[in-house]
Amino acid sequence: MRTAPGTTRRPNNLAPLFAPRGIAVVGASRTRNKLGAALARSLSGFAGEGGHLALVNHRDDTMYASVRDAAENGPVDLAMICVPAPACPAVLAEAAAAGARAAVICGGGFAEAGGPGIGLQRELAEVVAESGIRLLGPNTSGFLAPHAGVTASFVPGIAQVRPGRVAIVAASGGVNHALAFLLGEAGHGISLAVGLGNGVDITAPDVLDYLADDPATGAVALHVESVADGARLVAAVRRVAARLPVVALVVGKHDVGAFAASHTGALATSWRTARAALAQAGAVLVDDERELVDAVGALAVTRARPCAEPGVGVVTAQAGPGLLLLDDLRGRRVNVPELAAATQETLAGILPPLTFQRNPVDTGRPGPDLGRVLATVGADPEVDVIAAYALHEPDAVDLVAAAREGRAAGVPIVLGLGGVGEQVVRNRRALLDAGIAVATEPRGVAAATAALLADARARRSVPATPPAGDVPTGITGAYDEHQAKELLGRLGVATMPRRVCHDRSAAHAALAELGGPVAVKVLDAAILHKTEVGGVHLGVSAPAELDAVLDKLDAIGADRYLVETMAPPGVDLVVGARRDPVFGPLVLLGLGGTTAEALADVALRLAPLTAAEAATMPGELAGRALLDGWRGGPVLDPDELGAVVTALGELLAANPTLDEIEVNPMRVTVDGLVALDAVIITEEADDAQPDQ
Amino acid sequence: MRTAPGTTRRPNNLAPLFAPRGIAVVGASRTRNKLGAALARSLSGFAGEGGHLALVNHRDDTMYASVRDAAENGPVDLAMICVPAPACPAVLAEAAAAGARAAVICGGGFAEAGGPGIGLQRELAEVVAESGIRLLGPNTSGFLAPHAGVTASFVPGIAQVRPGRVAIVAASGGVNHALAFLLGEAGHGISLAVGLGNGVDITAPDVLDYLADDPATGAVALHVESVADGARLVAAVRRVAARLPVVALVVGKHDVGAFAASHTGALATSWRTARAALAQAGAVLVDDERELVDAVGALAVTRARPCAEPGVGVVTAQAGPGLLLLDDLRGRRVNVPELAAATQETLAGILPPLTFQRNPVDTGRPGPDLGRVLATVGADPEVDVIAAYALHEPDAVDLVAAAREGRAAGVPIVLGLGGVGEQVVRNRRALLDAGIAVATEPRGVAAATAALLADARARRSVPATPPAGDVPTGITGAYDEHQAKELLGRLGVATMPRRVCHDRSAAHAALAELGGPVAVKVLDAAILHKTEVGGVHLGVSAPAELDAVLDKLDAIGADRYLVETMAPPGVDLVVGARRDPVFGPLVLLGLGGTTAEALADVALRLAPLTAAEAATMPGELAGRALLDGWRGGPVLDPDELGAVVTALGELLAANPTLDEIEVNPMRVTVDGLVALDAVIITEEADDAQPDQ
Repeated sequence: MRTAPGTTRRPNNLAPLFAPRGIAVVGASRTRNKLGAALARSLSGFAGEGGHLALVNHRDDTMYASVRDAAENGPVDLAMICVPAPACPAVLAEAAAAGARAAVICGGGFAEAGGPGIGLQRELAEVVAESGIRLLGPNTSGFLAPHAGVTASFVPGIAQVRPGRVAIVAASGGVNHALAFLLGEAGHGISLAVGLGNGVDITAPDVLDYLADDPATGAVALHVESVADGARLVAAVRRVAARLPVVALVVGKHDVGAFAASHTGALATSWRTARAALAQAGAVLVDDERELVDAVGALAVTRARPCAEPGVGVVTAQAGPGLLLLDDLRGRRVNVPELAAATQETLAGILPPLTFQRNPVDTGRPGPDLGRVLATVGADPEVDVIAAYALHEPDAVDLVAAAREGRAAGVPIVLGLGGVGEQVVRNRRALLDAGIAVATEPRGVAAATAALLADARARRSVPATPPAGDVPTGITGAYDEHQAKELLGRLGVATMPRRVCHDRSAAHAALAELGGPVAVKVLDAAILHKTEVGGVHLGVSAPAELDAVLDKLDAIGADRYLVETMAPPGVDLVVGARRDPVFGPLVLLGLGGTTAEALADVALRLAPLTAAEAATMPGELAGRALLDGWRGGPVLDPDELGAVVTALGELLAANPTLDEIEVNPMRVTVDGLVALDAVIITEEADDAQPDQ
Repeated sequence: MRTAPGTTRRPNNLAPLFAPRGIAVVGASRTRNKLGAALARSLSGFAGEGGHLALVNHRDDTMYASVRDAAENGPVDLAMICVPAPACPAVLAEAAAAGARAAVICGGGFAEAGGPGIGLQRELAEVVAESGIRLLGPNTSGFLAPHAGVTASFVPGIAQVRPGRVAIVAASGGVNHALAFLLGEAGHGISLAVGLGNGVDITAPDVLDYLADDPATGAVALHVESVADGARLVAAVRRVAARLPVVALVVGKHDVGAFAASHTGALATSWRTARAALAQAGAVLVDDERELVDAVGALAVTRARPCAEPGVGVVTAQAGPGLLLLDDLRGRRVNVPELAAATQETLAGILPPLTFQRNPVDTGRPGPDLGRVLATVGADPEVDVIAAYALHEPDAVDLVAAAREGRAAGVPIVLGLGGVGEQVVRNRRALLDAGIAVATEPRGVAAATAALLADARARRSVPATPPAGDVPTGITGAYDEHQAKELLGRLGVATMPRRVCHDRSAAHAALAELGGPVAVKVLDAAILHKTEVGGVHLGVSAPAELDAVLDKLDAIGADRYLVETMAPPGVDLVVGARRDPVFGPLVLLGLGGTTAEALADVALRLAPLTAAEAATMPGELAGRALLDGWRGGPVLDPDELGAVVTALGELLAANPTLDEIEVNPMRVTVDGLVALDAVIITEEADDAQPDQ
């Protein structure tokens, strides 16, 4: 039924769903609180605008007896199916046979309910596959297409949401509505709002593909609960993101598995992996639905120029809120550069002396010069976005005019406007209409600003990695530590000089040749957890010490020894590549040690990836300060790390039989990165992989 | 001028400020955009309600020439001083002489501006000290006392904020207004809203003391930028918190120092310490101004019963938003217990089969039974707060009636109500009036719920620590490691067996007596950083090994050695007590190791403190999983740790000459806590303190 994952794009045939010429409500009802009655009411506006709305109920003489009857009196592109779950497959088939090209089933009782619902959902899938009808749902509250006049939802207030530029693609019908309401309250209109429900046919990539060509949409809000086909979602986000900003909220940071399963009938996708994949595809990530609204609302009206390290100018009419804003921006690691000398000089000519003018720029009491201040800050070469805050004081300054004047400098402005009342609401609307992002408080300004910056970074031009000339292939069987390090060497990863020793005299010769101190380890692909069985001894210098160590290794049954020069001191990383069941090959980076492990402080990316993309991974680690010369220690070269990570990712992508490669530890030293141990797990060797 | 820090309470004499019988605007103006004109306009409502409003401007014949003249025609309790900064001290003195008992100076140009402003601010302080007049400001946008009909602010829209139960005490006038607007938008009214500005006289503790007796106030929002007198603030918060919930937002988590100094003329207070101190005093802490509004708005209408481990019942009418809510609650480490069997049985009789009923409770399509569902969940013995979400669907359910029915079970409800339009706004207001906390989206529900829980925990009864019978005093001079450990022993802290050795033969005897392996260290209070100079050797077993180690210690000039039995393996902590310049003695707990240090993963408390309070510290660490049997390791006993931390805090509190004591590492072992090294810094020994 589906095309090959992530490769080709389905023909975009969702127009009959989202812009239908006619709609049949099957199971329409006169009983007010029935689903069929609610939908008929919601869709009355569609009929009022001249669309063909047909109510179908074979038990009601005043309605059509069937979709076929309804189709004789006008086009029926879309069937809204409001019958009990067991009747749905037959009604869906009947609608398809009558010419409907799309259908929505809002009701539940399918896979999410378990039991017989699972079979009913399978029957729906079969009808879809046989007839080609496109199905939204089941188990959703529908969709909203205000530009087409379609309110295909049973939630009554939703018709009050006005047409606009924001599209919502939500896993859940409830979240779809919640977001539409929040956007409406924030002054935004909707181009399309879809809740996917169980997604038996139409899933997020389908709607995203539709939106990629939708002229009414200016930005997309994507709500993700679980992902069936990671590659397809990533490809669809990438296509939309090439034209429109996409802001994504992924649910499931914490343990919500049992409830999530009851809701969607699917297992939760890894939150970290899904976030990493969506970011790589060009989406802006947010942490909650408030920030989703802040971010997508801002990106629907303005975008910053593509930039790797965008800077923010902070302008505030009141110092206290400005301090909240600056604190919040710093927490998001936003670059707030000191303004250029020329900018400060110009500001000194506008503002009273003794106000803070370096960045943030505190205007003191706001006045009509605010527009010039904004324009001056916007003209600073280091400023890519202006984050501003002002209380509504119409006697002191016309904020809309000032923001328009500042906007003329060409960089986006996010303006937090504090106030209540009708005039404030009108001002916020006027600002949005002028292409100025609006928030109600400093935190909203910070969230919107961070979104503009993330979008600007996502669109920066990234140098392509030259295709690796010689990626090793045919990785199968068991790898001992030496073989794993040989493979790393072929990838350009440094290791310490080492000798494989089959007996004691070879070990002594190796010590003499390498010079002490050395690490002496058992070499056996079958021994798991070398350290835990006493198979690793560090800092061996004297021959007598070596003999004592070899005695211990012999006692645990060592056949061969690995004698290796000790690495210089440094900071240990964990670097690896593995396969995610949903998203496929990925690479990961973390700090070594139990504290980092307990904190799950890890950066992920899909593989293969460019070295430039990989070089951004260390910056995501909570403990990144350790990699920047902490207490006089070595400094990580992100480009060197990027090359290593890229190579591991390419290796995994080129070797379907390679399950996982992990370098742990990978040490950051003053001389660069050195792999101290490595584990390779192949399909054939799952039961006997080496481990440290 | 001030009473002794944190001990006695000043007479509450702010009624002339916040509930004046008459107000004089000094420097009133006819020029529309002048401060004096704006304030006169803002206060016209006060005159309209029968208050005595006197406009004073000696250059305008239509106004009074002086406060004295004004006072002849009616009471003048409060002088709003709207003259340039250099004229303010004289005008303030004149107002005091004319009988005004309070004044507000909104204008800037004082300490925050530097230069001559510093002297002007000092002059204001002198007038206050001499006359006893109470002064709000300078450099603030004033205050708002809606119940008294006083809008003493130049921000015009603020008069639209209606009277209500929330009080705001904000460091900044701008933040005061921003918060009042946000609360107003969320449906809340204000009892008093104060921006402190430079705080030359009236600071947060003064206003808090006023609020402690204010019958109109139901909850307090406290915004903190810097703290001059930590003990006094803590005492004031404690007094208010005994009657009312206090929600605190502390600015300065990140580096905002330069801008903050320009704003307030004061150095930023330590964010962590201020938060710890306020929490200990009974305040609920929030991270941003949105959550401040969520939290104080909820606590103004409802509170949970005091409880150490409160549980939350999650009820949702739509699964998707419920999942967002659950995810958010889990992120806040909220306890969402499985409902009791009896509760689940009752729910099964109300709800359709196959909905999730364990907690969260998913009602499926919402219906009139929602009230019974809420009441049933509220009656569960494990549920102390209900966190609920529903879209506005008036055809399906009357949410106000349902929430009222649920509220009858006696536990607080936070209801997220998604929707737009007048009816939704009315419903939210009706819910607040019924004592039900309201939010607009899942995140707001989670934030409000977390605030109710934090408040319930803060009010739990904490077992008092029996007074320590014998806290060592007279801690002065230099302490070597052995002496420091002797002192720890007197506090009941375990150490390993050790011997102080004055020569080699003593060291050998110690090894023989203790048995290997031992740690061998240089013992010298004057050697800083023992490890870094090669003064610590671990795992010494054989006499020959000991000789080699002693050679090395001799080479760095060791006079004496400490030979100590090696501790069992475990997880290392850092535990200590030190003095904060603002808040005084405090204790701290962190994980050992560079990763934890780089992450600044530390829990703080003011000392002295109860053992029960100290026992809650490990739960705040990001890496707390390491203390709970990580990978088969030892489990920390929080009560044992609490006793140690309490003892360290008591020691510091009882010894003014003791600057700091740090146990690093303090190891968690299967046999309990063991101090492996300790450093004591006394006033006299600052230049020669021992270190590890």
